[in-house]
Amino acid sequence: MTDSAPSYYKHHVFFCLNERDKGEASCAPHGARAALDRCKAKVKEAGLAGPGGVRVNQAGCMNRCQGGPIAVVYPEAVWYTYVDESDIDEIVESHLKNGRVVQRLLTPLHLGR
Amino acid sequence: MTDSAPSYYKHHVFFCLNERDKGEASCAPHGARAALDRCKAKVKEAGLAGPGGVRVNQAGCMNRCQGGPIAVVYPEAVWYTYVDESDIDEIVESHLKNGRVVQRLLTPLHLGR
Repeated sequence: MTDSAPSYYKHHVFFCLNERDKGEASCAPHGARAALDRCKAKVKEAGLAGPGGVRVNQAGCMNRCQGGPIAVVYPEAVWYTYVDESDIDEIVESHLKNGRVVQRLLTPLHLGR
Repeated sequence: MTDSAPSYYKHHVFFCLNERDKGEASCAPHGARAALDRCKAKVKEAGLAGPGGVRVNQAGCMNRCQGGPIAVVYPEAVWYTYVDESDIDEIVESHLKNGRVVQRLLTPLHLGR
């Protein structure tokens, strides 16, 4: 519905930082804050940050906890399940810098809360 | 780059809930939390919530503070500047329910931080 206007950010990334009660799956206990910080730093380092470029944000629970820890990239609506720093680095280098989705890290479609 | 796959959520809404130091523009002092809660409630009431439908989330600073309080709807990348509950209700009814962008609430393109 906005085909005529470019997205304010070329890639807008949201990391779930939610923490649930003990025993329930959630992203925070799986290094989500560190991953967010890493992603922000790498994006800045690569000179990608800002309007027309990349923005990295924290978010609340996006209700795909079973696939967590997760991050979603808009406007392309690509969901990632990451494990460690090297996954974050690959998302920045491949997807955010070069526009190539990292297939091996895609969140399986059936995973919700 | 994902033209073949539908977005997990048809509309994914993020409200900035950031609060800056006194004197600096930010969204939290302008009723952002109440607007988020209102939006969530209205979406639920309309039966729109869930995969294939609408998800409403809080987010950190999206760096468009001068246009705040703001919310962005993905994957269509539509940014709104809202003022009161009736604005939220209109966004839910017009955009999230019927797919019609609320032109009068669009955040002016030049407004960043």
